[in-house]
Amino acid sequence: MDIELSPIGTVESPLTDRATAPKQGDEGAPEAELVLRAEVAEGLDGIQPGDNVIVLTWLDRARRDVLRVHPRGDLTRAEQGVFNTRSPDRPNPIGMHVVEVVSIDATRVRVRNLEALDGTPVLDLKPVLRSVEER
Amino acid sequence: MDIELSPIGTVESPLTDRATAPKQGDEGAPEAELVLRAEVAEGLDGIQPGDNVIVLTWLDRARRDVLRVHPRGDLTRAEQGVFNTRSPDRPNPIGMHVVEVVSIDATRVRVRNLEALDGTPVLDLKPVLRSVEER
Repeated sequence: MDIELSPIGTVESPLTDRATAPKQGDEGAPEAELVLRAEVAEGLDGIQPGDNVIVLTWLDRARRDVLRVHPRGDLTRAEQGVFNTRSPDRPNPIGMHVVEVVSIDATRVRVRNLEALDGTPVLDLKPVLRSVEER
Repeated sequence: MDIELSPIGTVESPLTDRATAPKQGDEGAPEAELVLRAEVAEGLDGIQPGDNVIVLTWLDRARRDVLRVHPRGDLTRAEQGVFNTRSPDRPNPIGMHVVEVVSIDATRVRVRNLEALDGTPVLDLKPVLRSVEER
């Protein structure tokens, strides 16, 4: 079975090069914008500046034929299965990023702590899950 | 641009009905198994019983044409944009589940706290991110 996804938007970021981008958003990523398609803008309703949001992206510059990697590309560390690492290289290269919303202007969501490269397709946004009592 | 995913495996679970399944894995989900395709088994290398793992699934019984929902299906709560909820109904219905690995037998990974329904395609596994010093 194959599954078809259609991006809900695109990342606009000063980051353009995988080799020099931070490996995680809390390792020095600059502010970036999620530019959503107008057709899905309604889905943002309720999201506020200051919220922590999980962004799922399609890591379109990743390799899909890799099953083992050195963690963080560090050749001194033993190879691991990709499912035990956060490597972008994996059979379905879906990126998962916890970001903080800075501001929202219609379909543009400005965020902190996103290490995705400029032009990366955005697949989904989800709230960080609160405790059982607050859901 | 359309994106094609190919599942890495399938969920085997006693849960078969969305209406009666827990809404989150920590709300009473039974043990379940992730049955991976033999071609990707190598990607599991390094995952151990006791590990917390993030499972991404394809919520194949979700609606993709919904942009606003009542949180948790509770009609007494105001509608929200789907990107501000964990509703399975959303343009790209990718499920995100934090589970605990119970045991691994070749391509079968037994887990706790998975609320996905039996037969749900599995897209990816990732480790829960540790603190910056421990990555």
